[in-house]
Amino acid sequence: MLKKIGILTSGGDAPGMNATVIGAIKAGIALNKDMYVVYDGYKGLIEKNFKKVDKHFIEDKLASGGTAIKTARLPEFKEEEVRKVAVKNMKEEGIEALIVIGGDGSYMGAKRLTEMGINCVGLPGTIDNDIASSDYTIGFDTALNTVVNAIDQIRDTMTSHNRCAIVEIMGNKCPDLTSFASIATNADEVFTCDHPLDDKNALFDRMEEAKRNGKDCYIILVAEKLLDTKELEKELNAKTSWETRLTILGHIQRGGKPTAMERINAVKMGAYAVELLDKGIGGVCIGIHENKLRYVDIYDALKLPRDEHKDLYQLHELIK
Amino acid sequence: MLKKIGILTSGGDAPGMNATVIGAIKAGIALNKDMYVVYDGYKGLIEKNFKKVDKHFIEDKLASGGTAIKTARLPEFKEEEVRKVAVKNMKEEGIEALIVIGGDGSYMGAKRLTEMGINCVGLPGTIDNDIASSDYTIGFDTALNTVVNAIDQIRDTMTSHNRCAIVEIMGNKCPDLTSFASIATNADEVFTCDHPLDDKNALFDRMEEAKRNGKDCYIILVAEKLLDTKELEKELNAKTSWETRLTILGHIQRGGKPTAMERINAVKMGAYAVELLDKGIGGVCIGIHENKLRYVDIYDALKLPRDEHKDLYQLHELIK
Amino acid sequence: MLKKIGILTSGGDAPGMNATVIGAIKAGIALNKDMYVVYDGYKGLIEKNFKKVDKHFIEDKLASGGTAIKTARLPEFKEEEVRKVAVKNMKEEGIEALIVIGGDGSYMGAKRLTEMGINCVGLPGTIDNDIASSDYTIGFDTALNTVVNAIDQIRDTMTSHNRCAIVEIMGNKCPDLTSFASIATNADEVFTCDHPLDDKNALFDRMEEAKRNGKDCYIILVAEKLLDTKELEKELNAKTSWETRLTILGHIQRGGKPTAMERINAVKMGAYAVELLDKGIGGVCIGIHENKLRYVDIYDALKLPRDEHKDLYQLHELIK
Amino acid sequence: MLKKIGILTSGGDAPGMNATVIGAIKAGIALNKDMYVVYDGYKGLIEKNFKKVDKHFIEDKLASGGTAIKTARLPEFKEEEVRKVAVKNMKEEGIEALIVIGGDGSYMGAKRLTEMGINCVGLPGTIDNDIASSDYTIGFDTALNTVVNAIDQIRDTMTSHNRCAIVEIMGNKCPDLTSFASIATNADEVFTCDHPLDDKNALFDRMEEAKRNGKDCYIILVAEKLLDTKELEKELNAKTSWETRLTILGHIQRGGKPTAMERINAVKMGAYAVELLDKGIGGVCIGIHENKLRYVDIYDALKLPRDEHKDLYQLHELIK
Repeated sequence: MLKKIGILTSGGDAPGMNATVIGAIKAGIALNKDMYVVYDGYKGLIEKNFKKVDKHFIEDKLASGGTAIKTARLPEFKEEEVRKVAVKNMKEEGIEALIVIGGDGSYMGAKRLTEMGINCVGLPGTIDNDIASSDYTIGFDTALNTVVNAIDQIRDTMTSHNRCAIVEIMGNKCPDLTSFASIATNADEVFTCDHPLDDKNALFDRMEEAKRNGKDCYIILVAEKLLDTKELEKELNAKTSWETRLTILGHIQRGGKPTAMERINAVKMGAYAVELLDKGIGGVCIGIHENKLRYVDIYDALKLPRDEHKDLYQLHELIK
Repeated sequence: MLKKIGILTSGGDAPGMNATVIGAIKAGIALNKDMYVVYDGYKGLIEKNFKKVDKHFIEDKLASGGTAIKTARLPEFKEEEVRKVAVKNMKEEGIEALIVIGGDGSYMGAKRLTEMGINCVGLPGTIDNDIASSDYTIGFDTALNTVVNAIDQIRDTMTSHNRCAIVEIMGNKCPDLTSFASIATNADEVFTCDHPLDDKNALFDRMEEAKRNGKDCYIILVAEKLLDTKELEKELNAKTSWETRLTILGHIQRGGKPTAMERINAVKMGAYAVELLDKGIGGVCIGIHENKLRYVDIYDALKLPRDEHKDLYQLHELIK
Repeated sequence: MLKKIGILTSGGDAPGMNATVIGAIKAGIALNKDMYVVYDGYKGLIEKNFKKVDKHFIEDKLASGGTAIKTARLPEFKEEEVRKVAVKNMKEEGIEALIVIGGDGSYMGAKRLTEMGINCVGLPGTIDNDIASSDYTIGFDTALNTVVNAIDQIRDTMTSHNRCAIVEIMGNKCPDLTSFASIATNADEVFTCDHPLDDKNALFDRMEEAKRNGKDCYIILVAEKLLDTKELEKELNAKTSWETRLTILGHIQRGGKPTAMERINAVKMGAYAVELLDKGIGGVCIGIHENKLRYVDIYDALKLPRDEHKDLYQLHELIK
Repeated sequence: MLKKIGILTSGGDAPGMNATVIGAIKAGIALNKDMYVVYDGYKGLIEKNFKKVDKHFIEDKLASGGTAIKTARLPEFKEEEVRKVAVKNMKEEGIEALIVIGGDGSYMGAKRLTEMGINCVGLPGTIDNDIASSDYTIGFDTALNTVVNAIDQIRDTMTSHNRCAIVEIMGNKCPDLTSFASIATNADEVFTCDHPLDDKNALFDRMEEAKRNGKDCYIILVAEKLLDTKELEKELNAKTSWETRLTILGHIQRGGKPTAMERINAVKMGAYAVELLDKGIGGVCIGIHENKLRYVDIYDALKLPRDEHKDLYQLHELIK
């Protein structure tokens, strides 16, 4: 019978990661497992930086952002020699299974470890919502609320001055924070890799028409890495009648108190990971799909296409 | 072709109702409909208290709680004679279809109106999450966050004094706010109609054991209408070693800025209602089921069993 | 030279208490003192429940409500025999001075200890703002924001239904939370010990006139312990045309993340307490008066009259 | 007797401006004045864009950021010819007095108008706290909380990765947002015009020492316009062992729901302005000084030295 389970957070941190760790630890201990936390992601496996914890471990962090067991990136974990050290260290401690909370990159490490004899389950922890095997990733709901509240605040001041705001939003390769926020804030424009700014002159024309129609604020959302927002700010100031101001939301999007749903999904997934490992299931990742928990083989998961949420752009077109 | 659509909010108000109204109005006008808002729920139909609006109507209320077009209860609407007045008034104005945002009670009126020649679509707007045809109702996510944040605050003070808190949570006939909050706050106990307090002595015992184990705070969530929380407060003070304090969360649960997801689901559903009516579909209600929009005949919807979320009580048992 | 300083929190907890403790500890250690935290208020002195801490002690709680070193009430501390045990315990450890964060009751204990050879400085920590020697107590600003945000939420739902809300607000013997909130929320009525509800019929008349004038919401703030708010709810429902709903805000008012100003004032006062003790000053309490730090002999402080803030009632009368 | 009073907001918008307008309007109408709002700051005087309002005007915006009567900058208002148009327009409408909410620049216009026969009172409305005649300006408390909450969120993610954060904070010529936030967030470094970064090597050394001591996060606050924060980010990444990330908070600092104290001070000042004008007092500006309302001649006010808050830097030095 499985006795010792490790848990780590990997890649970018996300609000709700603590709740996932708490859910896993409590569920594990309720099922008579010894639960180990591993610090600094995969690095902690290499450096043997892990410890056995009791059921109250970080339970006062349920409502806190970040990850109390730290995270780090370790590109070398792609190399088998490095992973062998991890496996050796775990085996020495008797840790037979591992829960990995993180993004796509972290999943691959989890799969490889499984193949080397440590059953692993991956959990989707990232604000970017860029994991196709889950409708929502842990951290996304909180980050989305941070983004939306920030845009609400920006709207206050832009409206007072009849200005245009460009807001640059995180998302790396997945623009969901931007596309979801476009509906939640009734933004005037939304530009992402799935819905790019193809025709600047058409944008200028829409802006001028809005000005003529008495619009007192113009909100443009842009996903990061799509275009040079500083340049766009200059152009709009130069070529339209809208005084324009850029805000790059930055790292506030990564922190903050997890929302209620974030915590619930996080706890659920943490407990479910323990349940799967207890049944001997590994090499899989957990997702919330169609409002239910499910698990998928990690290789299959990584092949799933990203949902572009075309419906959101269509809806935005309709209501803007 | 359908030309004029009315929209009203009915029953208890809920955060996100304004977003639904905005979504419907904007979508309707984009589809060349004349959009009418009806004030005070069904009462506005009887009193002919409605008006045609433009696409900017209440768009500055997207992030505001409550319903800007007001709501009211009108039990008399069950009587056919009363509804006939409503139909007559709408027909005089040329309003051929109606969107009704509210709870179960409001749905029945929408069905009856459909049978009398006014195509109606119902949308689930209530903080209670008590509409089985939708996984989540508009208002629930916001109210849940209000509840969870309130419990977080209560935990601060209870922990400082090593006290026990009883928190009474709204929900009328559906205890979802309570059961969901039990996971999001790591509450010690949760009592609802689906998971009642059967054995008080066992509760006292658990509380004493927790005290012996050094627990510095004990949080008990109780759904409204289940038991006399004032009485329970007295008993716990008398029969356990826990100094106990009751908080009845009350009407703060009904208000507040809608969350990001609330607004998105609300706008989606509002626009979808227009789309259905435009296709001639009526007598149905809209839900979000398995993370997708769907519609169901209202009679069928009202027969669907309520989801008791047994998984949440099991999860709570596991992790508490 | 003073070497060892203790710090405790006493009476009701308040947001910002942790920031005060942090400010005192960091300032003390910067000045080469050994800093001791005492758990559970004066009880910790009796039970010798204290420990020396380093400069990072609870620094991650700066933004957290409650008090991480716990608080308790100890009425027996009025007795000299009890205090003698406290003095003996401190002397055994070499603790020569003590910072006491709490309310009026706690100040008296601090004065008595000073007379028994342990120099003490009192800091005003209470949400009630009931300490006349300080314009603002630690916790008041946060609690006021909690109250005001709660009333904002209540207004959302009351306006949607054209209802009247009675909101009962904490404050024990000082109604500042209520009187300040009356301005911040534009409440229609405010009743406190300084501004009681003398004439119910006049209230009914004002409410009916407001209804006739088309007012869509009526907000009545009542300080706790002034009158039976449940009874008032019944009366207003019976004798006016306003459907009325009562909310007793309760313990949410005691918790929550301290505001920016709360934390700043708290850190300032904590550091100032160390500075005074280092100069050999004791038996005093610290306040923020006319926007500056000051200290006052505790006996003198306890004789200062409470500010009734008559200007706020006059302002309320003018603008309501 | 004074009969008609105008009110406008000028310069940068700030949370609480709406509350000031509401306070002035309600107080004015209670004193039997006709109250006029002027749109777009001084521009509205030139364009005769003003209107008489009733006592309920924007009362639902008490808790909203921005300014509902808009603001604008009008550098030409320095020219007497331009101001003459304003005076003429006001006189034609019978407006004899004016309340101007804004910053230093706006005050000078108010003084000039007074000299031309329109009694004016200036109110300090700006998030920057850069008006020496008032201890706190309207908007500062809200902006400070926005800044502090943002830094709390940034700390979450930086701690999870053991990173350094540079946070650039607004303030134009007054660094109070930055210096106050340094205490409220326990930042590691604070750099402003009053407390510049003189010695980069010393900074690097402090950072390396902190790293050696096990510090898991390093927060550096920088007031805007002091130094090139992008450049600093690069240098810290290159020359220290801290992975460093820059966030420029930007326009979120200007918006948002005003805090309780903001609203109270705003309403107080608005009402006080009416009172002064009613007594025939003009050419002055209002401040909150030593926790009391006062007024000062505008010329004198503009000569007052800015408070550098040296105590805060000393306190920061002590506790960091």
